[in-house]
Amino acid sequence: MAQPRFPQDVIARKRDGATLTADEIEFFVRGVVDGTVADYQAAALLMAIVLRGLSPAETAALTHAMQHSGEVIDLSDLPGPKVDKHSTGGVGDKVSLLLAPWVAACGVIVPMMSGRGLGHTGGTLDKLEAIPGFRTDLTVPEFRTQLARVGVAMIGQTAQLVPADRKLYALRDVTATVESIPLICASIMSKKLAEGIDALVLDVKFGRGAFMKTRSAARELATAMVACGQAAGRPTRALLTPMDEPLGHAVGNAVEVREAIEGLRGRGPADLMAVTQALASEMLLLAGVAHDAADAQSRLDTALADGTALQRFRQIVAAQGGDPRVVDSHHTVLPAAPTTLEVPAPPDAHGYVAAVDALAVAQVAMALGAGRASISAPIDHAAGLTGLVKVGQPIAPGQPLARLHGSDADLLAAVALRLTAAVRYADTAPRPVPHVAERL
Amino acid sequence: MAQPRFPQDVIARKRDGATLTADEIEFFVRGVVDGTVADYQAAALLMAIVLRGLSPAETAALTHAMQHSGEVIDLSDLPGPKVDKHSTGGVGDKVSLLLAPWVAACGVIVPMMSGRGLGHTGGTLDKLEAIPGFRTDLTVPEFRTQLARVGVAMIGQTAQLVPADRKLYALRDVTATVESIPLICASIMSKKLAEGIDALVLDVKFGRGAFMKTRSAARELATAMVACGQAAGRPTRALLTPMDEPLGHAVGNAVEVREAIEGLRGRGPADLMAVTQALASEMLLLAGVAHDAADAQSRLDTALADGTALQRFRQIVAAQGGDPRVVDSHHTVLPAAPTTLEVPAPPDAHGYVAAVDALAVAQVAMALGAGRASISAPIDHAAGLTGLVKVGQPIAPGQPLARLHGSDADLLAAVALRLTAAVRYADTAPRPVPHVAERL
Repeated sequence: MAQPRFPQDVIARKRDGATLTADEIEFFVRGVVDGTVADYQAAALLMAIVLRGLSPAETAALTHAMQHSGEVIDLSDLPGPKVDKHSTGGVGDKVSLLLAPWVAACGVIVPMMSGRGLGHTGGTLDKLEAIPGFRTDLTVPEFRTQLARVGVAMIGQTAQLVPADRKLYALRDVTATVESIPLICASIMSKKLAEGIDALVLDVKFGRGAFMKTRSAARELATAMVACGQAAGRPTRALLTPMDEPLGHAVGNAVEVREAIEGLRGRGPADLMAVTQALASEMLLLAGVAHDAADAQSRLDTALADGTALQRFRQIVAAQGGDPRVVDSHHTVLPAAPTTLEVPAPPDAHGYVAAVDALAVAQVAMALGAGRASISAPIDHAAGLTGLVKVGQPIAPGQPLARLHGSDADLLAAVALRLTAAVRYADTAPRPVPHVAERL
Repeated sequence: MAQPRFPQDVIARKRDGATLTADEIEFFVRGVVDGTVADYQAAALLMAIVLRGLSPAETAALTHAMQHSGEVIDLSDLPGPKVDKHSTGGVGDKVSLLLAPWVAACGVIVPMMSGRGLGHTGGTLDKLEAIPGFRTDLTVPEFRTQLARVGVAMIGQTAQLVPADRKLYALRDVTATVESIPLICASIMSKKLAEGIDALVLDVKFGRGAFMKTRSAARELATAMVACGQAAGRPTRALLTPMDEPLGHAVGNAVEVREAIEGLRGRGPADLMAVTQALASEMLLLAGVAHDAADAQSRLDTALADGTALQRFRQIVAAQGGDPRVVDSHHTVLPAAPTTLEVPAPPDAHGYVAAVDALAVAQVAMALGAGRASISAPIDHAAGLTGLVKVGQPIAPGQPLARLHGSDADLLAAVALRLTAAVRYADTAPRPVPHVAERL
């Protein structure tokens, strides 16, 4: 098909349910970036896509056009497999902090670009920045140099990468066109593919505290992203993991760094360790570093036991300007909140913890100052929760549900009630939920 | 329901197929005009409306909000019924030029605001402006004064009326959101209701040369507009009329003025006279000036026979700055093309004229300079076609199909072939089509 003449011709075809050609999609995305497609035309196409959908081929073409809308990092000169992980976001999700050094310690290059927290989900960048001095704004040359030297770098999206996504995402946010599987897929995958990876592992979360509320919605998004990665010639795996209760015992920024370091010492909470290890294992397999799951498991166990995973984390912190003493003296290096408050289980607590509402806990953390409601809001890196109870543990009135960390005793007292309301009880222990629900 | 907080909340509700409240629609339309709703948000909502539709109540609310987005003319101080007609546009459609003075001569006040031609459909304003000196840009006070004095005025949309429609229409044009029955309905009806009319008659055309290609699409639009007028307390009737061949024998501007004047002398083509009289009769009935169809017919016959309709046209021309001698000496007053060319029926012409493709004829008129491809393009008021054959008339090779009027003999010769291709023949006379297909 010939190059389209006008943006409205492309909009009209999608409006009428047609399948767009790669040329049409490329024409549109290029126009969004160079300004020949007006914002209102982009908005009309976005709404048509939300309501008419995109085929897997169209989604792949959109991803490709977005990926190539700016700089695409080429890491082919670095010897060794480059694999990254992406999570759709959860509460207490410090997986990346453990995973990146752990997998790198096993010989996989991990060029990780992450986002900031917004709304109820935390962001890896915010957590890392709780470490004094830690820089997440490396330039692309600095990023490459560190990958060559340390084998892993953890930074934010640079302005040169995927400008189409920045523009489209800003529009989607104010035109009610965020909720679309193909648009979410293209947004995530275009950024990951622009990093120069050879393969990708996805953690697609579902439940109360996730962007996808149901397992079937998560499966739909995961299927689209896996197809999109494969279409781009980048082997892609996805794990569906539950996010009804927060991951681990800590929710916040400094408190999550602490929990991640404990994890790198092999002392992390069971759910956090299980999810991280499952994702890490997939990365080792995709990288060709492990020949099967048992081999991957054994390599991961070794890297944890011999301290190389923890050492790699120390190297990341030092290379990115942070204080590497954080690993051994995190109580003195990380910011600590001036006030803490232990929240006891209420008089009606009995039997077992049946549910800890991840969304409600996230709202507690936000209220304490650990999250941001708008993109430019400041964050209190010391604020958050620790020692949060886990589903399935026995409980009785007066036993601690969690410890709140914040700047103001009155605020802590007020927020304590909301935490209490987030926990449910049952006479019998609930059936344990697998930490990985599905593998795609 | 409470006032919505953000435009995206309204967009999201329509995206999800909800029925919007009058408050939400009003909030959005007001925002479009005052700039608090961004163009891209308006575009997203427009696309959601195209794909999700609007209920009759939502369409009425949108019409009401648009109607009241600017000045609304109040003609209640003028004694007598105020009735207008609107046509969805056709080829050779000079109905308004006959109708307005004719109906006014029967005692109905006709506050007529019309549009310009764009694409293949001609515009009443362009036709009127073929009369030297004729002003279509009266101010609202001038419009009122003329209505009080002459009982009829024929002008363009003023900038003060329905600013929401200007803004939304400009957006729809470049975002592929024109094709939507409720949006078309609200656009037309908001402008008509802002004129201060008591009742309205609609000429909804269907066929090759119409905006609506099928009778069922025309019926759908007519039904929506009639419901919308009734919802606003303005009795509204619609006639569905065929537009497969052009109306009358003339297509252009000055040439159509000439044909309209002939019509006011009772010597117009049968199809033009039938459609105009049917619409005029509805206007007389809605105005309460005639008590039944036979009474309306007799009043219209009288106004034509005694010359009062023609005299009213002369008054309009004089009141609006035009040369009133146009009525009696149109050959000297109206612009004439420097060159004309009679196009003969080709050697394979035989039997009867079976079809005259209105769209193809309109494109011939455009090529001659009588129309405009873009809103700011100039028009040659003298260009066009006269003596066009009608479906059902006997034909033989060499007999004239039409006379082309233009500025350049080479152009006329080139265009002649396209006119020849627009006419089809049959051995037997085709069954006559009623001039009015349906009345709603």
